This record gives sequence, structure tokens and C-alpha cells, in this order.
Amino acid sequence: MADNEVVLLDYILSTFGIRVRIALAEKGIEYEYKEQDLVNNKSALLLEMNPIYKKIPVLIHNGKPICESLIIVEYIDEVWKNNPLLPTDPYERAQARFWAKFVDDKVHTVARTMWLGKDGEHEAEKKELIENLKHLADLLGDKPYFGGEKFGFVDIALIPFYKWFYMYEKIGKFNLDCPKIIEWAERCLKNVESVAKFLSDENDVYDLIKMHRKKIGVD
Amino acid sequence: MADNEVVLLDYILSTFGIRVRIALAEKGIEYEYKEQDLVNNKSALLLEMNPIYKKIPVLIHNGKPICESLIIVEYIDEVWKNNPLLPTDPYERAQARFWAKFVDDKVHTVARTMWLGKDGEHEAEKKELIENLKHLADLLGDKPYFGGEKFGFVDIALIPFYKWFYMYEKIGKFNLDCPKIIEWAERCLKNVESVAKFLSDENDVYDLIKMHRKKIGVD
Repeated sequence: MADNEVVLLDYILSTFGIRVRIALAEKGIEYEYKEQDLVNNKSALLLEMNPIYKKIPVLIHNGKPICESLIIVEYIDEVWKNNPLLPTDPYERAQARFWAKFVDDKVHTVARTMWLGKDGEHEAEKKELIENLKHLADLLGDKPYFGGEKFGFVDIALIPFYKWFYMYEKIGKFNLDCPKIIEWAERCLKNVESVAKFLSDENDVYDLIKMHRKKIGVD
Repeated sequence: MADNEVVLLDYILSTFGIRVRIALAEKGIEYEYKEQDLVNNKSALLLEMNPIYKKIPVLIHNGKPICESLIIVEYIDEVWKNNPLLPTDPYERAQARFWAKFVDDKVHTVARTMWLGKDGEHEAEKKELIENLKHLADLLGDKPYFGGEKFGFVDIALIPFYKWFYMYEKIGKFNLDCPKIIEWAERCLKNVESVAKFLSDENDVYDLIKMHRKKIGVD
């Protein structure tokens, strides 16, 4: 086996997978991308590599699997030291971890409850989502990136969700009201090559979720 | 301000707070413990230090707050280098983070759905909880601790929940069926002074949850 054989099990529209692809690109790591069929036929490799959750993304490094997107990004940052993604100061590191987790718990999870739900049933979640994006705008302040002058860990955690905003607004029939976050996201798209390369098309995301909503009978 | 002024905002029966107290003790860090009234009167200090979640534990180090128990434990491990809690190898570190998160998502959260629910409504969660404890028993294997020969990060993540098992079983009227985990927990209690010092009394936990269940109308 090669010294640095890197394989990524992923699904093209996955926000969590995109985090990992961006991190790998930021480090300049070559890898084999293996698209997974999550709906009809989970691969034997996926089931072997992530027996607990059976989910993507899974990074397989020299045959050993790492699961959970933020844990994978930290792993990448610890193994490949060039172009650091997390800050070096322990307090700043803790803050970066806190806000990345906030994206999972308070952006993704709250939005998900809304877009998996029936029309009009999740007004509280919409309100919370708007508030939580305001917290992130406050955190960003006048910095170009959450990482400061440099695109970093929290930027990677949040940016894939930017292309889900259109779907959030169209499914929820509301406005996210987050001009500062949009400005930040457009800055990332313009200045960070890996972001421009890997971010999804918002229409593809909308179509995917629309189809899923029909399948589970909420649309 | 002193160079290392450490304050912990906590609540005595909190599993998450106990993680932090154990980590602080394992490092030999002196700190001021400030018990918080979470039900009737959240302190101005708590609201100032954790404005997002307004929850304990919060570690305040030289005036700066760190929130979220696993993030606090990692912070402690990065600032105070003696008696390391996480492994040094990046792959082992990723695995430790994965399993600590598993405790949050697949032990605590699953159990919580059960013990916040009405009698008999959460059979699936009980089954899942038993399965998830088996995953942890498999992970432990023949090692004395999840950290290997040494009590470490995953041990800290899980051990406070041991004293919640009695409540889980009594509220859920079922058996967790996890002799290996009980053996491990008793080993921690016997050999790790901080565990013996900080673990809750299982009757106190049961009384607390029983009272809470009455308050929210499920008991």
C-alpha cells in the first residue's frame, strides 16, 4: 500500500462531504473519490468502513477509516501540516470547534427539521434559523473570513450550506435575512478556488430535497 | 488577574460538568467551582459567559469562557500538557473524538428521548441504547480503559453516565445488559480518584429526573 493512499467515500451533494473535499483541496492532497449510492445500494466498502453510521463522508487513509466530517477535517489538519485550517492558540481552537459544532447543531439541524416537515408547521425553526445566522454574522464582524484574514475551519464548516439557503427559503417560504453571511459566502466563492470548485448548484439541492419530501409524504 | 485563574460554572449532577471536573482533577488544576441554579435563576455570569446556549458547564480561564464539555476537555488537554487525555497519534485522536461524540449522540441523546417520554412509548430507543452500549463494549475489547492502559478522553466522556444507568433502567423498566461496561465503570471508580470523587449518587439522579418528569407531565 502506498504511504499516503487517500480515498474519499462521498456523495456529490453532501454538505458534509464538501467540507472534506474543500479541506483536502486546501492541503493539496490527491485522493480517489468514490461516489456512493446512499439510497438504493450502500456499498460493501461503506458498510465496512463506517459500520456504526453507514454514512458518508468517510476518509480512508492508508486503509484506515475516519468518519464524521468535522473530525475528518481536524484529522486532515493534524496529518498534513501545510496551510493550517485550525488556529494554533488553544483558546482560538476551542472557539473554532464551538462554532463549527454550532453550524451542525444550530444551522443544519434546525433547518433540517423545517425542510423535513410539512408546510407551515415549523415557524419556530425558521425564526431560530434567522437568529442563528445573525449570531454567525456577529461572530464574523468585520473580518473577511471566520478564520480571520484566512479561510479556515469555521468557514469550511459553514460554506457548503450556503448553496442550501435557496432551498431553505423556497421550501420554508421565508427570507433568511442574512446579507452579511451572503457577502462572506460570495467572498469565499470568489477568492477560494476549492469553494468555487466544490459548492453545489442550488437548483440541484432544491430538486433533491423536493424529491425527498415527496418520497416521505410531506410535499 | 492571575495568570491562571480558572472558574467553573457547573451544576452538581450534570454529566457534562462532571467530565470537566474529572479533566481538571486529572491535570491537577485548581479552580473556583460556582454552582449554578439552572431552573429558577440563571446567573448574570452564566448568561454573559454562554450567551448562545445559556448552559453549564462553562470554563472561564483568565476571564475567557469555553463552552461545550468535550470542547472544554480538549482545551484543558491542550493548555495543560501534563497527564495527556487524548492520544498523540492523529488517527487515534480522531477515533477518540468519534467515540466521545458517539457517547453524546448515541448514548445520552437516545437515552434522553426515552427518559423524557411517556412510559412504554420508547421501545426503539431502549433497544438502540442496548445496541450502542454493546458497540462501546466491543470498542473497549480487552483493554482496561477506552484510552488503553490509561484512563483518557473517551473514558471521561462516558463515565459520568454510568450513574445514570440506574435511572435509565428504572424509568424505562428494562435492563441495559452491559456487564462489560459496568466492569469498566467499576474499574474507573476503583482506580481513578477523580471519578470516585465526582460521580453522582444514582439515587440523586433518579430523584432529579423523576421530579423533572412530573414537572413536564410525563409521569
